[in-house]
Amino acid sequence: MSDSSDFRDTLEVFENPSPSRNFIIEHHCPEFTSVCPKTGQPDFGTIIFTYVPDGVCVELKSLKMYLQRFRSEGIFYEAVTNKIMDDFVAVVKPRRATIESRWTPRGGLSSNITVNYPDEG
Amino acid sequence: MSDSSDFRDTLEVFENPSPSRNFIIEHHCPEFTSVCPKTGQPDFGTIIFTYVPDGVCVELKSLKMYLQRFRSEGIFYEAVTNKIMDDFVAVVKPRRATIESRWTPRGGLSSNITVNYPDEG
Amino acid sequence: MSDSSDFRDTLEVFENPSPSRNFIIEHHCPEFTSVCPKTGQPDFGTIIFTYVPDGVCVELKSLKMYLQRFRSEGIFYEAVTNKIMDDFVAVVKPRRATIESRWTPRGGLSSNITVNYPDEG
Amino acid sequence: MSDSSDFRDTLEVFENPSPSRNFIIEHHCPEFTSVCPKTGQPDFGTIIFTYVPDGVCVELKSLKMYLQRFRSEGIFYEAVTNKIMDDFVAVVKPRRATIESRWTPRGGLSSNITVNYPDEG
Amino acid sequence: MSDSSDFRDTLEVFENPSPSRNFIIEHHCPEFTSVCPKTGQPDFGTIIFTYVPDGVCVELKSLKMYLQRFRSEGIFYEAVTNKIMDDFVAVVKPRRATIESRWTPRGGLSSNITVNYPDEG
Amino acid sequence: MSDSSDFRDTLEVFENPSPSRNFIIEHHCPEFTSVCPKTGQPDFGTIIFTYVPDGVCVELKSLKMYLQRFRSEGIFYEAVTNKIMDDFVAVVKPRRATIESRWTPRGGLSSNITVNYPDEG
Amino acid sequence: MSDSSDFRDTLEVFENPSPSRNFIIEHHCPEFTSVCPKTGQPDFGTIIFTYVPDGVCVELKSLKMYLQRFRSEGIFYEAVTNKIMDDFVAVVKPRRATIESRWTPRGGLSSNITVNYPDEG
Amino acid sequence: MSDSSDFRDTLEVFENPSPSRNFIIEHHCPEFTSVCPKTGQPDFGTIIFTYVPDGVCVELKSLKMYLQRFRSEGIFYEAVTNKIMDDFVAVVKPRRATIESRWTPRGGLSSNITVNYPDEG
Amino acid sequence: MSDSSDFRDTLEVFENPSPSRNFIIEHHCPEFTSVCPKTGQPDFGTIIFTYVPDGVCVELKSLKMYLQRFRSEGIFYEAVTNKIMDDFVAVVKPRRATIESRWTPRGGLSSNITVNYPDEG
Amino acid sequence: MSDSSDFRDTLEVFENPSPSRNFIIEHHCPEFTSVCPKTGQPDFGTIIFTYVPDGVCVELKSLKMYLQRFRSEGIFYEAVTNKIMDDFVAVVKPRRATIESRWTPRGGLSSNITVNYPDEG
Repeated sequence: MSDSSDFRDTLEVFENPSPSRNFIIEHHCPEFTSVCPKTGQPDFGTIIFTYVPDGVCVELKSLKMYLQRFRSEGIFYEAVTNKIMDDFVAVVKPRRATIESRWTPRGGLSSNITVNYPDEG
Repeated sequence: MSDSSDFRDTLEVFENPSPSRNFIIEHHCPEFTSVCPKTGQPDFGTIIFTYVPDGVCVELKSLKMYLQRFRSEGIFYEAVTNKIMDDFVAVVKPRRATIESRWTPRGGLSSNITVNYPDEG
Repeated sequence: MSDSSDFRDTLEVFENPSPSRNFIIEHHCPEFTSVCPKTGQPDFGTIIFTYVPDGVCVELKSLKMYLQRFRSEGIFYEAVTNKIMDDFVAVVKPRRATIESRWTPRGGLSSNITVNYPDEG
Repeated sequence: MSDSSDFRDTLEVFENPSPSRNFIIEHHCPEFTSVCPKTGQPDFGTIIFTYVPDGVCVELKSLKMYLQRFRSEGIFYEAVTNKIMDDFVAVVKPRRATIESRWTPRGGLSSNITVNYPDEG
Repeated sequence: MSDSSDFRDTLEVFENPSPSRNFIIEHHCPEFTSVCPKTGQPDFGTIIFTYVPDGVCVELKSLKMYLQRFRSEGIFYEAVTNKIMDDFVAVVKPRRATIESRWTPRGGLSSNITVNYPDEG
Repeated sequence: MSDSSDFRDTLEVFENPSPSRNFIIEHHCPEFTSVCPKTGQPDFGTIIFTYVPDGVCVELKSLKMYLQRFRSEGIFYEAVTNKIMDDFVAVVKPRRATIESRWTPRGGLSSNITVNYPDEG
Repeated sequence: MSDSSDFRDTLEVFENPSPSRNFIIEHHCPEFTSVCPKTGQPDFGTIIFTYVPDGVCVELKSLKMYLQRFRSEGIFYEAVTNKIMDDFVAVVKPRRATIESRWTPRGGLSSNITVNYPDEG
Repeated sequence: MSDSSDFRDTLEVFENPSPSRNFIIEHHCPEFTSVCPKTGQPDFGTIIFTYVPDGVCVELKSLKMYLQRFRSEGIFYEAVTNKIMDDFVAVVKPRRATIESRWTPRGGLSSNITVNYPDEG
Repeated sequence: MSDSSDFRDTLEVFENPSPSRNFIIEHHCPEFTSVCPKTGQPDFGTIIFTYVPDGVCVELKSLKMYLQRFRSEGIFYEAVTNKIMDDFVAVVKPRRATIESRWTPRGGLSSNITVNYPDEG
Repeated sequence: MSDSSDFRDTLEVFENPSPSRNFIIEHHCPEFTSVCPKTGQPDFGTIIFTYVPDGVCVELKSLKMYLQRFRSEGIFYEAVTNKIMDDFVAVVKPRRATIESRWTPRGGLSSNITVNYPDEG
C-alpha cells in the first residue's frame, strides 16, 4: 500500500478550547471502506475515535477526507486500525485514545478491532 | 459569540430538598440547536446533565430557557459543551457533574463530547 | 403536601425468607403519578426499588397502595424520590437500597433521580 | 408570519432523469424547527416528503435551505405542513406527493400531520 | 360517573387552516389515567386520535385538560373510549376519526380498544 | 381432554356500552400454558383476541380464569386455538372475531395459529 | 442432489381438527442449513411456512426431520425453496400456502425467496 | 408447599469436561410458572442460572424437569429463588453461582430477585 | 459517467428452476457506494431488488460485481436507481421488479428512491 | 468424536502487524452447528472470539473452515467451547483470550458458555 506518512498529512487540527480539562471527544464514522488485499474485494466498516485532547482537537472535515484516502487502499482489518492510531497519535497527540473498527460480515463472520493509546498492557 | 456570563444569568436554582444525601439528578435535553461557526448551518444535538447537587438544584424551566439562548449562537461542539459546564458549575455549584453532548451526523460522521467536574484526570 | 409519616403507614412487610443471605430484590413500578406543585399539572414516572432485605421484605400490594397515595399530591421530582427513600428505610430497614425515578418529558426535557442508602459519598 | 411566496423561491429543481417512469422519491428531514406562535417556544419535528416527480425533482441542498427558513417563524403544526405542501406543489409540480410532519412531545402529547396531493377525499 | 356533557365543554377548537384539503392529524396521549369502577384501582393507558378535520381542529392544550378530567373518574375501557369519541365528534365535527386506547397489563392481560367514525360496518 | 362445554361456563360477559357502533376490542394474554398431549411437557404461548362486540363484551377477569383452565389440559396448538374460538363465539356472540395463538419454540421451531370468525374463505 | 421424492416421505401429517374452517398455521424454522453447490460452503437460513390446512396438518417433529435432510444437500436458494413447496403440497395438500426462505448474508448480500400456492399470477 | 428435598432429587449432573478451568455456564429458562400462595393465581417468570462448575455440570433436561415441579407449587418470588439456589448448590456444588428470577407484571409492578453464592456481603 | 451498456455486461444469469411459478426473489445489498457528481464526495446506500423471474434469475456474485462498478462513478441518487433498473430489466427480463435505494444522511437529510417495473402509473 | 489435534491443523495464522501493542481482535461467528451426542439432533450457536494477539493473528477464512469441521461432530456445549479454546491457544498463542458460545433454545432453555485464557480464578 501507499506510504502511511502521506496519509496523515490530510489530518488537520484546531486548538483545544479547554485544555485545562480532561474531557472526552467521540467520533463515529460509519462510512469507511477499504479493499481486502487478498481478494481485491471492498471491505466496509465503522471507525470510532474516542480521545482526550491535549493541545489540539482533530478537525472533522479533515478526518473525513483522511478516512476517504483508504477507499482504494488494499489493507487488512488489523493493519488499518493500527495505522489509523499511528497517524492519529502522530498528528493529534492526545492524552488518551481508543480507536475501534467494526466490519460488516464476510463469509458469515464479522470482526471488530480495538486499539488503545497509551497501551494498557 | 456573545459573552458567556450573560447566558448563565438565565439559570435559576431552588434549594436542595435533601442536602445531607449525595443523590443523582439527570436531565436529558434532546432539542438543543446552535449554529456551526464555520458553515453557518444549524447543528442539532442532545445535552445530558448528570450531577450530585450540593446546596441547590437547577430549576428545569430555566435550564430550558438557558439552552435556547444558543439557538442563534455560532459555536463548535467542543466549545459549547465546555461552556455549558462552566456556566452550570458557576451557578449550581454541584458536588459532581457530567455534561454530555450528542450531535446528529454531519458529512457521515457523528460526534459526542463528555465533560466531567471535577476533572478526573 | 400531606404529612409524610401518614404515607409510610401504608407500607407492609413480611419476614425475609432467607435473612442469612444478602440477596437483591428489584421492583419496577411504571404507573406512578403525582402533581407538579408549580403548574398543578400531573407528572408521570416509573419508580424502581432495588434493595438487599434485612429482617423483612416489602409486601408488593402495600407498595402499590403506598405509591398511589401520591396521585393527588403536589411534590417535585427531587423531593418525592427522597421522601420515598425516607419512608422505605423507616419501614423496611434494608441493608442497602437504591430508589430511582424516571419521568416522562416536560417542555422537551426528561429527568431521572437516583437516591442510594446508605449514602455512598 | 412572513409571506409564503418568498419562502418557495429558495426551492430549486433539476430535470427528472427518467420522466417516462412513475418512480418514488422520499426525503426524511429530522432537523426541522420552527416557533410556536402561542408560547414563543421552539418546536422540533421531522418532515418527510414522498413524491412521484413529473418534469423536475427537488434539489436536496435547496430543500434543506428552504426548511431552515422556518427556524424563526411562528407557525402552528397544521399550518406549516399545509404551507410546505403548497410551496412544494407550486415549485416541483409532482404527479403525486405526501408530506408528513412528526413533532416531539409537548405537554405529554405528540402530534403528526399528513397532507396528500392530489387530495384523495 | 359524571355527566359526559360537562366533560366536552373543556375541548376547544381553532379554525382549520386548510379546509379545502382532506389532511390527517394524529395526537398521541400516553399519559391517560382513569379509575377501574370495579376495583377502585387506577388504570393507565395511551389515547391516540387520528382524524381529518372539517371546519375546525382540536386545540392541543384543551385536549390535554379534557383527558385529565378522567383522572378520578370510574369508567371501563370500552366505555371511556366510546365516550371520548362521542365528545370529540360533538365538538370537533371531523370528516373522519379513529380513537384508539391502549392499556397497561392487568392480571397479565393487556387490552386495546379502537372506535371509528363514521362507523365502517 | 375435558369436555369443552364445561370450560366455556367460566366466561362471563357484560353489556356492550355502545352497541350501535362496530368498534374493535383486543386482548393480549401472554401467560397461556397447556400441556402437549404427545410429550406430556408444558407448552407456553400468547393468545390474542380481536373482536367486534354485538350485544355483550367479554369480562376480563373471567377471560383470565377461562384461559387458566387449560393449565393441566393435554391439547395440540391447532385444536386449542379452534376450541377457544368455539367457546368465545358461543358465549360472546361477536359480530366478527380473530383469535391468534403464538407459541414459544419447540425443537427449534415456533408456531402461530390464526382463526377467523366468520370464516373468510 | 438426491431425488426429491425420497425427502418428502419424511413428512407426516395428522387430521385437521377443524376442517370446516379456513384457519392459518405458521411455522418458523430458523435452523435451516444446506450446502451451496457452487462453493461447497454451508448456507444458513430461516424457512417460514404459512398455510391453510385442508384434510390434514403437518406434524411438527416430522417437519423438523424433513428440513434436516437438506443438511448435506448441495442446492441453490431458489431451487430449495421451490422444492420444499413441491414436497409440502404433495404431502399436506393445503388449501393455500406460502413458503419463505430468508438467508444470512454472503459477500455482503442477503436474499429472501417467497413461493405461493396456488400461484397468484 | 412440598418438601424441598424431594425437588432436588430431580436434578442430574454430568462430569465437568474441563475442571481445571474456571469457565462460566449460563442457562436461561423463560418458561417458569408457579402459583402465588396468597391469591392462588399462577405466576410466570424467567429463571437465569450463571455458574462456574467444579466437579460436575447440571444436565439440561433434568434442570427443565426440576423447574416444572414448581408448576402447582404455592410459593413467593423471594422464597422460590432462594430455594432454587439451595437445591442447586446442594446438588451441583458450583465454585460460584448467581440465580436470577424475572417476573411478569402483577398489579402494574414487575419484580426481579437475584441470589449469589457464595454470599458477597 | 461511463456508458451504461458496459456496466450491464457484468450481470450474469442462470436458468429459473421453477419458471411455471410466479415466485419472488429479494436481494439486499447494503454495501453500495458511488460518488456525488456535485461534491465529488462518496455516497453510501443499500440497494434492494425484489422481482418475479421469468426465464432466468440473476446470479448473486455477478450482481455484487455489477454494483461494485459504481464505486468510482459520479451519479445522482435518482439517476443511479433508474439506471440499475434499466440494466436489470435488459439482462434479467423479469416479469415484475422493484428496485429501492436507501441512502445515508447528507446535510441532515436522508433519501430513498423506488422504481417499479412495469410502471404502475 | 474425532481426535481434536486433527481439527486444529485447519487453523492458519498471519504475522501480527503491530506486536508492540496490546490490541483486541473480536470475531463473531453466528453460523456454528454441531450435533448433540445424546439426541443426534443438530445444535446451532454463535461462537465469539475476543483476544489480544501476540506474535500472530488467526486468519479468518481458516477460522471459518475450522468451525465447519464440527458440522457432523457429536459434542456437548461445555466440551466444544473448551476444545475450541484449547485449539485456539495451541495455534494462535494469544496473550489473552475469551471464547463464548451462545446456543439457540432447546426444550425452552437456552445456554451460553464462556471460557477465559489465562484462567482468572
